[in-house]
Amino acid sequence: MRSVSIVGIGQSPVGELWNRSARQIAGDAIVAAMADATIETADALYLGNMLSGSLLDQEHLATLVADYCGLTGIEAAKIEAACGSGAAALRIGMMAIASGFHEVVIVAGVEKMTDTVGKDTTAGLATAADAEYEALHGVSFVGLNALLMQRYMYEHNVPIDAFAGFSINAHRNGVNNPNAMFQEAVTLNDYLRAPVIATPINIMDSSPVCDGAAALILVATDRVQQFVHGHHRGAVRILASAAATDTLAVHDRRDPLWLEAAYSSSQKAYRQAGISTKEIDLFEVHDAFTIMSALSLEASGFARRGEGWRLAHEEMIGIGGELPISTMGGLKSRGHPVGATGVYQIVEVVQQLTGTAGANQVQKAEIGMAQNIGGSGATILTHILGV
Amino acid sequence: MRSVSIVGIGQSPVGELWNRSARQIAGDAIVAAMADATIETADALYLGNMLSGSLLDQEHLATLVADYCGLTGIEAAKIEAACGSGAAALRIGMMAIASGFHEVVIVAGVEKMTDTVGKDTTAGLATAADAEYEALHGVSFVGLNALLMQRYMYEHNVPIDAFAGFSINAHRNGVNNPNAMFQEAVTLNDYLRAPVIATPINIMDSSPVCDGAAALILVATDRVQQFVHGHHRGAVRILASAAATDTLAVHDRRDPLWLEAAYSSSQKAYRQAGISTKEIDLFEVHDAFTIMSALSLEASGFARRGEGWRLAHEEMIGIGGELPISTMGGLKSRGHPVGATGVYQIVEVVQQLTGTAGANQVQKAEIGMAQNIGGSGATILTHILGV
Repeated sequence: MRSVSIVGIGQSPVGELWNRSARQIAGDAIVAAMADATIETADALYLGNMLSGSLLDQEHLATLVADYCGLTGIEAAKIEAACGSGAAALRIGMMAIASGFHEVVIVAGVEKMTDTVGKDTTAGLATAADAEYEALHGVSFVGLNALLMQRYMYEHNVPIDAFAGFSINAHRNGVNNPNAMFQEAVTLNDYLRAPVIATPINIMDSSPVCDGAAALILVATDRVQQFVHGHHRGAVRILASAAATDTLAVHDRRDPLWLEAAYSSSQKAYRQAGISTKEIDLFEVHDAFTIMSALSLEASGFARRGEGWRLAHEEMIGIGGELPISTMGGLKSRGHPVGATGVYQIVEVVQQLTGTAGANQVQKAEIGMAQNIGGSGATILTHILGV
Repeated sequence: MRSVSIVGIGQSPVGELWNRSARQIAGDAIVAAMADATIETADALYLGNMLSGSLLDQEHLATLVADYCGLTGIEAAKIEAACGSGAAALRIGMMAIASGFHEVVIVAGVEKMTDTVGKDTTAGLATAADAEYEALHGVSFVGLNALLMQRYMYEHNVPIDAFAGFSINAHRNGVNNPNAMFQEAVTLNDYLRAPVIATPINIMDSSPVCDGAAALILVATDRVQQFVHGHHRGAVRILASAAATDTLAVHDRRDPLWLEAAYSSSQKAYRQAGISTKEIDLFEVHDAFTIMSALSLEASGFARRGEGWRLAHEEMIGIGGELPISTMGGLKSRGHPVGATGVYQIVEVVQQLTGTAGANQVQKAEIGMAQNIGGSGATILTHILGV
């Protein structure tokens, strides 16, 4: 199997991009990634996206975006795994290179969730849940996460402010990310006073509805020298890629507070990379809700069950901490354009490993991990990158 | 690169399956394919589907279907390329095996287009076109094909009944396919009297709105013996797989009557398989509309430009003809559950190559081709299979 490396990254700013349509936002990220890799064409585009059908009346999105980017003719397919679509697209891009089907592949993710006239974004997000057994009963996606958080607080006897540190950390890091939706720090007081969306989740526990796109250029590691020229900052190798699923509906799980697919995919990734959690210099967690950060840290082996929240302080998860997370703002502050998020996470790990993360640079970062979660933990993909 | 073979096939009947939901229909096909391959689990499911988001309020469909089939835990992703989603999923399944990422992969396609309460299936199908530059102006997907057919008739001075043979052939073959939606022959008279949907397309030119699912089990060719036991009818090897795209909007093409992506993907496929059109024993065309059959035959090298319609008679395209097409009824008579169609085509080629096509068996069939088209020719995938 050919090893796969990333030789170019690109991203659009995240926010309410009312003057940009999905194709334009995706194009911004893809053109930037191609310029970064100094390439003028590619063999294929695998595009992570969740909601273009339900919110934009646009399927066939990957071919549309390839066409818009002047890449008419190349293979194109949209990859959907709810909020895990971005990392799912990355895995497929890797397979395309590793198999020898292609030599240069663009992996991108895009989501346009605002300014969608006549559509209901909350209902769109609920399509990540089981339409016939969860959404039909009126539970929204925030509602499902609120039930998990409530249960966690009850079972582990944890107060609400235990989660504040995840939100504060994300916002602190977002301040220095010019592409973040929120570039403003928040305090514990802000967190405690934040309006509640679905008890106990408040607006500071929850990632925002937004638009954005990110892109990667993949090539075989043994061909990196053809793409990484003298002036380039260097390529990043994908050391591990693993995907796992769980029951779609939360009510079907033996233990709703255990993310089995995070455990399974992270364990596979550690074996592939031949490392343990101790060797990971930074971790881009899927902090769509603060409860997901806690559950992900536990199932991925960074904390014991019921103790993930204990990591939520600066000495542990801050840029200078033991395990920096959400280093460019995470889903909470950079934003969560759902089908693009998994690709943003990888772009940010590449920034850290190539020393281009600016004020948020993690010192001596050599191994970075990203975990992308679809639905309430039903699809989880873990990637480990290294230099 | 590891060669990839198909060791199991499954399909649900096609029709208005009002008492089966998408997960059940997909499950029917997947469980049948797994039984056919005598396997009890798999490493991954790549699921072709176009409309679950817009018609069923259900994304995250692949994980849902894996879960429903008792395969909770395996990798799962939905692949979308409009009506080309099925073949796009097949290519990704092939990459997963060829790269060594996985050993046993399920490729399936499913679509549920009827009984979708409160949803507009015609509007859903129009999401294959450019939402902002085609659909916005009110043109439906049938409308776009009608414009192409009108232009073809004008440019090549062809009468309407020139297309009848495609429809008659499909229905003749559908009679003997127990899974076909329409198991009834039609005559030239039926064709000429058929109600017009969008001039000049009548109901006999057009494939139906319907539900259905099909599935394949893929393994590496060098491991086929572990899956094909003494009693099994044998495996089929995928000799070629090629994908190409074109501009999404028809109005952006230099020549709207030339399917560049069919030309490009079929030429690549012929080179990969090391064959010419003469060696192809049967061809599953994407006869969503009769005009698409003519255009596909021309761009794929079976007829000169403007002369594809001349093949539409039994001596040429019938089961005993020179180039049998739509051998199990095609999209017109078997039906066109859009995201599943590309997988049905492959299932039917496998039936032909393994001598299990029943009354429609093409004699001495050794090499079969399938072409799956997304949108009005914007995404086209060509596969060649052999025994």
